[in-house]
Amino acid sequence: MLILNHDDPRPLYVQIYAQVRERVLTGKLPAEARLPSARDMAAELGVSRNTVESAYQELLAEGYIHTKARSGYFVSTIGHEVPPAPPQRTAMPSRVPRTRYTFDFHPAGLDPVSFPASVWRKYYLEHLRMDEPLLARYGDPQGDPALRASLRDYLERSRGVACGIEHIVICSGLQHSLDMVAQLLRGRCMALATEDPGYPLPREVFANHGYEVVPTPVGPGGLDLAALEASTCDIAYITPSHQFPLGEVMPIANRLRLIEWARQGRFIIEDDYDSELRYQGKPIPSLQGLRPDGNIIYTGTFSKILSPALRLSYMVLPPSLLAEYHRRFLFHLPGAALPEQRTLAAFMDNGHLERHLRRMRAVYRKKRQALTAALARHFGPKAEVIGQEAGLHVVVRLMGEPRGEAERTKLAEASGIRLLPFSIAHADGRPADEFLLLGFGAMTPEQLDQGVRLLFDISYGPEPRSH
Amino acid sequence: MLILNHDDPRPLYVQIYAQVRERVLTGKLPAEARLPSARDMAAELGVSRNTVESAYQELLAEGYIHTKARSGYFVSTIGHEVPPAPPQRTAMPSRVPRTRYTFDFHPAGLDPVSFPASVWRKYYLEHLRMDEPLLARYGDPQGDPALRASLRDYLERSRGVACGIEHIVICSGLQHSLDMVAQLLRGRCMALATEDPGYPLPREVFANHGYEVVPTPVGPGGLDLAALEASTCDIAYITPSHQFPLGEVMPIANRLRLIEWARQGRFIIEDDYDSELRYQGKPIPSLQGLRPDGNIIYTGTFSKILSPALRLSYMVLPPSLLAEYHRRFLFHLPGAALPEQRTLAAFMDNGHLERHLRRMRAVYRKKRQALTAALARHFGPKAEVIGQEAGLHVVVRLMGEPRGEAERTKLAEASGIRLLPFSIAHADGRPADEFLLLGFGAMTPEQLDQGVRLLFDISYGPEPRSH
Repeated sequence: MLILNHDDPRPLYVQIYAQVRERVLTGKLPAEARLPSARDMAAELGVSRNTVESAYQELLAEGYIHTKARSGYFVSTIGHEVPPAPPQRTAMPSRVPRTRYTFDFHPAGLDPVSFPASVWRKYYLEHLRMDEPLLARYGDPQGDPALRASLRDYLERSRGVACGIEHIVICSGLQHSLDMVAQLLRGRCMALATEDPGYPLPREVFANHGYEVVPTPVGPGGLDLAALEASTCDIAYITPSHQFPLGEVMPIANRLRLIEWARQGRFIIEDDYDSELRYQGKPIPSLQGLRPDGNIIYTGTFSKILSPALRLSYMVLPPSLLAEYHRRFLFHLPGAALPEQRTLAAFMDNGHLERHLRRMRAVYRKKRQALTAALARHFGPKAEVIGQEAGLHVVVRLMGEPRGEAERTKLAEASGIRLLPFSIAHADGRPADEFLLLGFGAMTPEQLDQGVRLLFDISYGPEPRSH
Repeated sequence: MLILNHDDPRPLYVQIYAQVRERVLTGKLPAEARLPSARDMAAELGVSRNTVESAYQELLAEGYIHTKARSGYFVSTIGHEVPPAPPQRTAMPSRVPRTRYTFDFHPAGLDPVSFPASVWRKYYLEHLRMDEPLLARYGDPQGDPALRASLRDYLERSRGVACGIEHIVICSGLQHSLDMVAQLLRGRCMALATEDPGYPLPREVFANHGYEVVPTPVGPGGLDLAALEASTCDIAYITPSHQFPLGEVMPIANRLRLIEWARQGRFIIEDDYDSELRYQGKPIPSLQGLRPDGNIIYTGTFSKILSPALRLSYMVLPPSLLAEYHRRFLFHLPGAALPEQRTLAAFMDNGHLERHLRRMRAVYRKKRQALTAALARHFGPKAEVIGQEAGLHVVVRLMGEPRGEAERTKLAEASGIRLLPFSIAHADGRPADEFLLLGFGAMTPEQLDQGVRLLFDISYGPEPRSH
């Protein structure tokens, strides 16, 4: 018979429900067995009839029992027995190692205290207060119109991107944009050329979507256009303002040649991920602006210039894809959180983005100088810095006979140094013994110096000294 | 010659850069033409030599010009001429109509003043204050571990879902989860069965990913399992707690039969989108809990029970897919904003979610009663309410000879009524003249009564009276 536990926090009717359910599932109460009437069971258990009725109603709703007219409750035929499965509680380590690093050379690391929190908070709270129904809405699936309008003007002003607000789609990160592009181009395109060495995420997204991915070499002007033109690729993913990771700027001749290549139904994905962070001269104008009516999908993000935690990014679709976008994403909903979108729009409209960028350029220029000085100081002629005075990372070519990449990575981890191996940029993952990929955004000049000194020991010295 | 405009807000070096650039692009300055030395141009324009040098450095960086040793600057061969393209400024209407509706019967409409803003704000600000580096980080790609831990306990307690935190992936909405599932199952599965009538988003996502989509009829117990078993489908998308839109609960016998179907390498996507909003009895336990080690992908969201604007949702992957998930999403980044994730974890840990849910059940129960009372009052025997006492919508079967769906939708729009046609749930989009799909979440009882009265006129009456 059922046993009720009055110390159990669960209501009595839930206990009755659970015990009957278990007996039905395990076959202890066979199909068509008749249950006691609610009155009888209530009397037997010493509870109210309503309590039993509530339990019976649940069991009825879920199909464990059924009624026969005026005859009472009967167990239903459920077809299979179900042994109770124990809940799994083992907590496996998540992918991000929980180690707190003393030195963080991750190429996407930002200055940890630079987020304009008080200004952000001010606009965020304003929106929460002023527009209470804001949180009850989904918002425009393409992204908040106010944000898209601010972004349109900003992109024209600072990146030379020419578009209407109807071409802008607010996203929650590059992978969201690329997911949409992969869906958008299905049936039209089949093979994506990626820069090799290059950013690994596009390879992963398009491979996941069933596209052929063709890693294509990178030369002094960025993507090797002869190799591209000789291939069967119909999409090219490029980082022309600041090639990741080697830093090349794609010169105008190559840009025009690439635009010409894209004319016959091919597409360019221009990933302008950190172009505002340029410390010598002004940011390189976008490729998109050279042919706004061409087949160029332009993507940008706030993850490098503002915050990666907010998941705010965008893409500008070419006119040729706009109708297809609306067709293929008719029932889709926004990707990015609406309060964040509105806050960002206000932040931009009041000039804070450009103020923040000016400040961050100064901060990151100083950090880059500290890194290159530390490299000169500790590596001397053994390290050659590759890349532009831009972005949040440099690549270092190691001369002589450094330790291999795998060993360096292990020693770094053991020394509390977060060091991403350059080989993540290789499509085939082959080790890059001669290259270091060093982010400088997350550390102070002092930390950079100490970290670089340890890196020298890791690369060339005996076992690193403890710190 | 170049003409500088001292009233132009752009710096002089930018003007020089822009004008030389334009001449190179349009061919006015042909390839290999020699530019004046910086000193000569500076003298001619009446600016400093540094100003001209800055412009030349930009042009050099972008490949418009090149230097020959000690000979000066020469125009580079760019290969194509580029006529300047005018910026597009026409603002086309975005997909969400800007009309403010007087009556909002959208099935996903929430009570506009119910969001627990002050509590949310409190935890949000706490996190901004306490953890300044929070905004400089991406966070765990699988979702914040604190949130996943809170969610794990909540899901076990309230939904009978059995899993470890390693099985939970925080997402930014159902479409994000389904995008990932579609990528995860590529190569393994090819055809998705969807409920018909049913929620349109899964059809769209999987079709975009190149899967075959097989709309499958819905009967009294939800998805028609005989039809499913007779098909070649290897994935089934279901809403077993509260079928959208008809409201059926899938009984236990069907659940077990479906789990048996999924054993041979097939998968079930259980979308538990509004199960906590049940006004009679307690929420139906998840299908996942019947076989946590089976091939069931469980998805849930905070869009109905908390806020659709925050873009917070989750999925629980079965153990059989965990390794593949890590393999296919190695370089992926989080979908949901990190401050929101942390705030939600604190909100849940302090009991606010369950408090909020209790409050909202009372609110929505009352609204549903107001709706059904209004239907009885204004439609009488012409309207039969279909569906459970659950969720945020009902379906009404219209008796007699109502106006056709297309006409009703048009009249509703003209009367300031937001009315989603039931036919969005039909895979083939065929009109559903006999059904109304009515959300009740967004209106007060008074508005529901007035709105329903107008709906009667729209469905049966002469032209609706103006209101």
